[in-house]
Amino acid sequence: MSVLKFSIPEIFFGRESLKYSSVCAKRLGAEKIFFVTDPGLEQSGWIDVLFDIFEDENLEWVHYSNVASNPRDWQIHEGADLYLDEGCDVVVALGGGSPMDAAKGIALVASNGGRVQDYEGANRIQRPLPPMIFMPSTAGSGSDVSQFAIVTDVERRVKMSIISRTLVPNISIIDPILLTTKSRELIISSAIDAFAHAVESYLSPIAFSITEIHSLKAMELIMKYLPRALQSNDLDDLEQLSIAGTSAAMAFSNAGLGVDHALAHSLGGMLDVVHGLIHPVLLPHVLRYNMVVCLDKVADIGRIVLGRSLGTPEATAKAGIEKLEAYFHSLGVATRLRDIVSDRVNLSQICEMAIQDSCVLSNPRVATVEGLMQICEAAW
Amino acid sequence: MSVLKFSIPEIFFGRESLKYSSVCAKRLGAEKIFFVTDPGLEQSGWIDVLFDIFEDENLEWVHYSNVASNPRDWQIHEGADLYLDEGCDVVVALGGGSPMDAAKGIALVASNGGRVQDYEGANRIQRPLPPMIFMPSTAGSGSDVSQFAIVTDVERRVKMSIISRTLVPNISIIDPILLTTKSRELIISSAIDAFAHAVESYLSPIAFSITEIHSLKAMELIMKYLPRALQSNDLDDLEQLSIAGTSAAMAFSNAGLGVDHALAHSLGGMLDVVHGLIHPVLLPHVLRYNMVVCLDKVADIGRIVLGRSLGTPEATAKAGIEKLEAYFHSLGVATRLRDIVSDRVNLSQICEMAIQDSCVLSNPRVATVEGLMQICEAAW
Repeated sequence: MSVLKFSIPEIFFGRESLKYSSVCAKRLGAEKIFFVTDPGLEQSGWIDVLFDIFEDENLEWVHYSNVASNPRDWQIHEGADLYLDEGCDVVVALGGGSPMDAAKGIALVASNGGRVQDYEGANRIQRPLPPMIFMPSTAGSGSDVSQFAIVTDVERRVKMSIISRTLVPNISIIDPILLTTKSRELIISSAIDAFAHAVESYLSPIAFSITEIHSLKAMELIMKYLPRALQSNDLDDLEQLSIAGTSAAMAFSNAGLGVDHALAHSLGGMLDVVHGLIHPVLLPHVLRYNMVVCLDKVADIGRIVLGRSLGTPEATAKAGIEKLEAYFHSLGVATRLRDIVSDRVNLSQICEMAIQDSCVLSNPRVATVEGLMQICEAAW
Repeated sequence: MSVLKFSIPEIFFGRESLKYSSVCAKRLGAEKIFFVTDPGLEQSGWIDVLFDIFEDENLEWVHYSNVASNPRDWQIHEGADLYLDEGCDVVVALGGGSPMDAAKGIALVASNGGRVQDYEGANRIQRPLPPMIFMPSTAGSGSDVSQFAIVTDVERRVKMSIISRTLVPNISIIDPILLTTKSRELIISSAIDAFAHAVESYLSPIAFSITEIHSLKAMELIMKYLPRALQSNDLDDLEQLSIAGTSAAMAFSNAGLGVDHALAHSLGGMLDVVHGLIHPVLLPHVLRYNMVVCLDKVADIGRIVLGRSLGTPEATAKAGIEKLEAYFHSLGVATRLRDIVSDRVNLSQICEMAIQDSCVLSNPRVATVEGLMQICEAAW
């Protein structure tokens, strides 16, 4: 075993944990917060709740919410300019993966200069970032825990993966109550994203015991509680999805992802589709592609999906993948690539782009453009 | 579920990870390291290896090794004076729980002033500590990961528990190669300490999914790999004990401990016995004491110890405790309290002291002096 690294933020988890945000900001030296969210969240009541919490601690803040789903490079630069003009000192984000990744990009460019494109890839950030406190409003992206930020380069139509330990926020405040105001679609796409994080990190060649137990726990919780939460919208069930998302993020941030996410980033950059809804299309075929080099681990996933083992690892793995396909189908989401990509001729370009993504580096089976095409053809 | 907190250091794990120590120290701003170890480690070759690593990065250091097993209050004050006199800026420790806890105490008193006694209990530290990098040479204490420091007040003959998030080191560098030079006795006492951390944190009322999976994994690994490691002294087996110790520490640091550790601190303060060797005596009886309020969880522990479930949770729990007693016996350690405490009349004083320890606060069953006496009588 080579030297492995495990880095996560300080975590506050639980109902009404939002109230700790201002105390945490002050502890990190905040006088003027740069607060990032998105237009959707502005319409929810949570922003006002949060502003009251800031005010109670006499904190000033600047509010930036010009963040698209799949945040754009120019939004990062606009935000960074505002951060510097206003003399902010701590970055606080509330939202799903998009505002959180935008907040990371803003913190990065404001402190390290240049353009966000300069940092694409792994370990390219030299100088420290301002303190960051993130409050996820979905249970999936894991950006509040991870060393990943995904930002779209509009000109190249590429979702860039920026990966660095310094992108791990200082504090993640996870309040599952926020999930009670989310749509069914968002609960599903977030949970599936977390499931894909758990699966890919589990199969990574740099997974080890401490990441693996989180991957497995996340899969188990999502299989059990996603259907329940959709039926009940009960806080107890939603809370389990929050835990699953957090565990999956602790795993993938430290063990990495794989070709499912590389392809999802490529598809997302080109077609601007909802990230979490790409996995049901790809993941079963990615598992079949990877199975030849990590059968026992795919069988472990199968055991969780099926709730039991079959006679051989191969049987368990195969039946698990089939059950997973049925599970995705039961959620009412698209399960064929043709439902997402309008033209089959785009596939080779998508694969050419995906092979450049840093996520392919931690895929268990060596990835080639041909291999990715094989996955896309099977998923078509 | 109330608001729970989960805080761990950045972790480097693996063979030869020691070499990262100086780069990490520099990243945290080190120019002059305060290096803490103990006389036993000075005789091993590891100190010279480390000094070469420091030198390669042009780091200066001050070396403090006047640390006893169960570190004393006056050693903390002596070390803190030296830290300040020498103008050090980062604390680095190499060793087992004693030098690491001493290093925490030194960092605390050097930055917050006063005497180490001033901080006894939970959350009494106001000002930040200097950056800390810890390298555990045993797989058990978890001090490199935890928010605990245990220091003996010589005059009162009390092991004080000091608990604060600020005592979590910045970086833990866990190199399992260090274990290859350890004695059989030390491997056993460290692994049993980690096992007790795992058990007590699992039963804590503030345990939650993220701590529980670490508790369970630690128990599983220790049951499986401690006997193997003792027979083989093989690095693969020892590495699994390192992972177990780390997982157990991630759990107990965030979920707390219980009356086993409260009594162990009290016994250790009065009699200066090896901490890890107190648990085989107490833990089975602590489990019987707690079982009445958390039968299902004690049955989970039983399932790991037995490798299977019996007909009912009660049967699994009881048989698990018996098997655990046999397991401790097979390791050749003392399993009766009378083998450690010379005079039975001391027991009530030990229990009176233990009830003051912060660890009783996270015991699942309300602890009373009578309850602790009942445990000690059963263990006698």
